[in-house]
Amino acid sequence: MDPAKLLDILGNENRRKIIQLLANRPCYVSEISSRLGVGPKAIISHLGLLEQAGLIECSVDEQRRKYFNIANNMRLEVSVSPYSYTVTLHDVTFDRGKNEEDPVEKEIPPGEESSTLFLKLSSRLKELKKRQEELAQMQQQLQVEYTEAMDHCLDSIEEIARNPVECELLFELLKNETTLATLCYNLRLHPSIVNANLIGLTKRGFIEYGIKNNQYYWKIRETGVENE
Amino acid sequence: MDPAKLLDILGNENRRKIIQLLANRPCYVSEISSRLGVGPKAIISHLGLLEQAGLIECSVDEQRRKYFNIANNMRLEVSVSPYSYTVTLHDVTFDRGKNEEDPVEKEIPPGEESSTLFLKLSSRLKELKKRQEELAQMQQQLQVEYTEAMDHCLDSIEEIARNPVECELLFELLKNETTLATLCYNLRLHPSIVNANLIGLTKRGFIEYGIKNNQYYWKIRETGVENE
Repeated sequence: MDPAKLLDILGNENRRKIIQLLANRPCYVSEISSRLGVGPKAIISHLGLLEQAGLIECSVDEQRRKYFNIANNMRLEVSVSPYSYTVTLHDVTFDRGKNEEDPVEKEIPPGEESSTLFLKLSSRLKELKKRQEELAQMQQQLQVEYTEAMDHCLDSIEEIARNPVECELLFELLKNETTLATLCYNLRLHPSIVNANLIGLTKRGFIEYGIKNNQYYWKIRETGVENE
Repeated sequence: MDPAKLLDILGNENRRKIIQLLANRPCYVSEISSRLGVGPKAIISHLGLLEQAGLIECSVDEQRRKYFNIANNMRLEVSVSPYSYTVTLHDVTFDRGKNEEDPVEKEIPPGEESSTLFLKLSSRLKELKKRQEELAQMQQQLQVEYTEAMDHCLDSIEEIARNPVECELLFELLKNETTLATLCYNLRLHPSIVNANLIGLTKRGFIEYGIKNNQYYWKIRETGVENE
């Protein structure tokens, strides 16, 4: 799914509430409607949108009543900082049917052991949750370090750049390897000006170019600096 | 910030584009308006909303023109899976002014060394980015493991539960430690029914209760099971 589409979906409070309900348990339209205090017509329209996006799916029970449930695992990360805005969607599609052939599961003796197994699985779930929280904290810390390093980098760019164009180019390349065309577009500068400055920076050992997918990419130099 | 508020904000494409622009560089209203092809009136209204939410801030340049930039570091994580929907917002407020007193920075010799420093910082940024990607992958993997463990747990619940209410109670407690009141509300069951089943499950060693903030919380038992 396109992350922008997911953000559009999550931008609506009632849709968020529907997802919340379905993550708790599969539901009928009537249940969702009464829980949210929203008419079934509006609920059906939201459900249609969610289903079309692949976020939920619909099944039919023994009484031929339709119910909805979350279709898959998704993880959306939005990171906003003074130097970057990234939206990543990890669409964790995995084959849950595979579990049935899982040899580990077949080894489990049935009957009397199922209660022990349940408690073991429950503590495993708790562990996994804790690990998730730890990772989230590490990511937060990394984001702080990134912004701090970027602050230092900007100070450093101001010292080494000989004109505003060099300054802008180094800043752009710091964020991403980029083609000449993208640099011209982003900085709204004529290719001849950009090119002249790129050559100057290359000569002074700050940047270099590489080829990727048959295109020249400019980037900050990866090795140490020799003398000018 | 309330994560729901951030999702409301990000639910609009033009607001996302504005954040994208500002994460690239601070901008004037006129720049944003021309880049997005959207009238300044609409842009000002979006900017007002973003500023009010603390996502961006406004400064004035030497010509007394207002420009906007991203105010801080934020990290939003939305995780949707068949068994959980979580939205977490890490509001990484940190004092960027502190860097100026950073002793490490003061130790850096000025002038001739600044070019080496720049390349070092640039490779540090690259490392940090790589580490961020690694962590994101680990979290994805964890989410898959969590759903798999939850699948197994549900199979196991079906084996040990003696009636549908027990089944629902174990499922609820698996997701969270919960009070009696919340269980009654979530399952829409009378307290007497819920209580009777909680006592049954406690006697069979599956659940237990603890006290937190002067309230009784029910949870899956943390130690192994003795005989019934």
